[in-house]
Amino acid sequence: MAKEKKVEQITDMEVDFAQWYTDVCKKAELIDYSSIKGMFIYRPYGYAIWESIQRQLDARFKETGAENVYMPMLIPESLLQKEKDHVEGFAPECAWVTYGGSEKLEERYCIRPTSETLFCEHFRNVIQSHRDLPKMYNQWCSVLRWEKTSRPFLRHREFLWQEGHTMHATAEEAMAETEQMLKVYADFCENVLAMPVTKGKKTDKEKFNGAEATYTIECMMHDRKALQAGTSHFFGDGFARAFDITFANKENQRAYPFQTSWGVSTRLIGGIIMTHGDNNGLVLPPKVAPIQVVVIPVAQHKEGVLEAARAVADRLKACGIRVKIDESEQSPGWKFAEYEMKGVPLRLELGPKDIEKNQCVFARRDSGEKSFVSLDDLETVAADLLEKVHQGMFEKAKKNLTDHTYDAETLEEAKRLQQEHGGFIRTMWCGEEACELKMKEEAGMSSRCMPFGEKSIGNKCAVCGKEADKVIYWGVAY
Amino acid sequence: MAKEKKVEQITDMEVDFAQWYTDVCKKAELIDYSSIKGMFIYRPYGYAIWESIQRQLDARFKETGAENVYMPMLIPESLLQKEKDHVEGFAPECAWVTYGGSEKLEERYCIRPTSETLFCEHFRNVIQSHRDLPKMYNQWCSVLRWEKTSRPFLRHREFLWQEGHTMHATAEEAMAETEQMLKVYADFCENVLAMPVTKGKKTDKEKFNGAEATYTIECMMHDRKALQAGTSHFFGDGFARAFDITFANKENQRAYPFQTSWGVSTRLIGGIIMTHGDNNGLVLPPKVAPIQVVVIPVAQHKEGVLEAARAVADRLKACGIRVKIDESEQSPGWKFAEYEMKGVPLRLELGPKDIEKNQCVFARRDSGEKSFVSLDDLETVAADLLEKVHQGMFEKAKKNLTDHTYDAETLEEAKRLQQEHGGFIRTMWCGEEACELKMKEEAGMSSRCMPFGEKSIGNKCAVCGKEADKVIYWGVAY
Repeated sequence: MAKEKKVEQITDMEVDFAQWYTDVCKKAELIDYSSIKGMFIYRPYGYAIWESIQRQLDARFKETGAENVYMPMLIPESLLQKEKDHVEGFAPECAWVTYGGSEKLEERYCIRPTSETLFCEHFRNVIQSHRDLPKMYNQWCSVLRWEKTSRPFLRHREFLWQEGHTMHATAEEAMAETEQMLKVYADFCENVLAMPVTKGKKTDKEKFNGAEATYTIECMMHDRKALQAGTSHFFGDGFARAFDITFANKENQRAYPFQTSWGVSTRLIGGIIMTHGDNNGLVLPPKVAPIQVVVIPVAQHKEGVLEAARAVADRLKACGIRVKIDESEQSPGWKFAEYEMKGVPLRLELGPKDIEKNQCVFARRDSGEKSFVSLDDLETVAADLLEKVHQGMFEKAKKNLTDHTYDAETLEEAKRLQQEHGGFIRTMWCGEEACELKMKEEAGMSSRCMPFGEKSIGNKCAVCGKEADKVIYWGVAY
Repeated sequence: MAKEKKVEQITDMEVDFAQWYTDVCKKAELIDYSSIKGMFIYRPYGYAIWESIQRQLDARFKETGAENVYMPMLIPESLLQKEKDHVEGFAPECAWVTYGGSEKLEERYCIRPTSETLFCEHFRNVIQSHRDLPKMYNQWCSVLRWEKTSRPFLRHREFLWQEGHTMHATAEEAMAETEQMLKVYADFCENVLAMPVTKGKKTDKEKFNGAEATYTIECMMHDRKALQAGTSHFFGDGFARAFDITFANKENQRAYPFQTSWGVSTRLIGGIIMTHGDNNGLVLPPKVAPIQVVVIPVAQHKEGVLEAARAVADRLKACGIRVKIDESEQSPGWKFAEYEMKGVPLRLELGPKDIEKNQCVFARRDSGEKSFVSLDDLETVAADLLEKVHQGMFEKAKKNLTDHTYDAETLEEAKRLQQEHGGFIRTMWCGEEACELKMKEEAGMSSRCMPFGEKSIGNKCAVCGKEADKVIYWGVAY
């Protein structure tokens, strides 16, 4: 009963996917709304997922040699304007500070929508010689973009992210960094978040404002829409020239350094929800779940049950597993539903009969599968099951991606496949923006990426029929 | 020679303490200036100290049951105005956002100077029953206060901090939380940062805008000025009433919850610099030093030296010590000066003769003391020396605090002691704000705190001579 009541609170995803998504965000207590449209409150459970992502990504960044810094949140308008393409892209969605206290400012400042300009100003101060290169910086912060529409985690006016900014002596080094960071993101998504990705290059139309090239990881959601989950940009020396950043190279000549930037945001949490969630709520990848195992004592009023449950919880904690024991007076059924909603990967049930038999019950959140486990094997089985949950989640998501990636030879076919199945539509493309625009207009799909190392499917552009040597993915994107 | 050259870069603290401080911030590469006055760039070495503080404080907060969240950075003007004392205190130093993109906003938003109002708005949504209490939240973020003057770490327009905000069912619980968090701060300062503190209560004049009571930890700097290093506030139910936050208590009656907030900021880094630094630069407490041991190979071109130095570095890393080996082509003298400037607690020197004798040289940053150590004892001696450096730093700072805390019975005596020695002047105080104002006007000192549990020194107010039962500390504050 209790369980049904809790589950009733969310809409089925087959009925209304968008509503299901919002329900999960609210009922799993990930997020709350504030009084400013598009600015959200990250609640403890949602923020704990971000902390877990941060901790693990940060360690990976540092392994590559990146160092963390913190830049000011405000950018003078004149500074933002130094790089033409960049300001054109961002100025329309900046929030502007015009007063400091009661004083009108001489120049207005925008709250950073991204920090390339601030990093460039600083790089100009700290880069003089080739010995100062590479500079590999990252910052964890929030940025602000004054969007018209919003949705929890997917599109906020203010969102949390990290932005890496690096400077290198040569274009080759900068390109290697751009590619390396895309690999770091892809590996993290697949091996930590259990989210399979498609790696590739963005078209010129879709690349970052001011970049020479943008690389992306694209994921497929349950509703078969695409989510751009992370990007890595190669800037060439464009910003360096605009900001007059030079260094003395080994031949003691002035040269411009080459730049990259790369970022992921709390959008990843939206990706987790829409990749793994189900009609009972959230399903969290074990490696970022704030609670990996929830211990539910059954018939907890009976002698010895709570003590035994606590002992089991302590043993799991001792081997580094994140455990919560729920000793509250709610019924086991209510508790089952509650932690299913919150996506806890493993539930451990322990009642008087289990204690008698020196066993417990494990229930997997991803598959619902239950198993009786001897308490002698508690630690090894728990660790093994967490790994299996991760694998199970990854394979399920991978199947969704593979099953719903379709090849098409014409725009009509692409359009039909998208309408019938959703997903990614793979075609050849001639490289003309006109064809991209036509695909968008007629089939409602934007280009997602030109994937790395995939076999071509013919040699004609699906849109114009002219010769084409580029494989491209199309999709309906968040 | 090289060493002298490096050291020449900073002013002696006896010559000009303020200039010495700025020199250290710049030359130790902690901070850089941005193009907006009062907004600073936290460089990798400075930010790494903050990350170390964050990691350790965060663990201590979580042990008390606090959970991290993230609130929006913007506060609608109408929301800020809900609590009268609070808005009066903060509105004059708010930065105001008036445009979103090209659109003028209907209501202006300030960038958070602190987030009580935002937390209250959220508490109103999530607190309904006594079962929802206590709520113990913390956030790590930056805040903005449009100050007229600025100084690295001590006074920024934008600074990094944490702000804890908690709600409790009873005044007693909230008061216990206020006191507990002050203890957490004091313990952290003394046992991690090696900074002795004086704990006490602020006068009404000096308390936080909107608080019923503010508790503080006050530290004494090298120049004998006071630094307020952390505060913890008890709000009573004032904000709860202003924001209409109520809960059903155990008797099922509506009641107002009781609130606290508490915070420390990157100001702590300023405190570290001015408590421990010397004329060779920074001196970092081992527990937050980004590099705890720097390994300097001597005569590194000779066969076997680099290999031996790397082996030593690896052994120290393996036992969890943060180690850097400097293999660059700079001279050992240059390297010695460089890592002294950066305040690395221990330097390990290793040359051909040491290798022959199976030994190395350790030099302590705090005392300059050198010792020859058998490589057989490397790990234990390193750990032991780091502990000794911490102790040595704490005792030196404690002596500064004790030696420069003076008792006075009259305003004249207090004034003379401050002029002659600086430091804290301890007197009795009647509790009248008029006397506080007079002390400020005539002796240039503000009240720092009414210390906990200190013996009274007479029974007459040092300013007005009337009966007094409060011990109070006065000082010149940063």
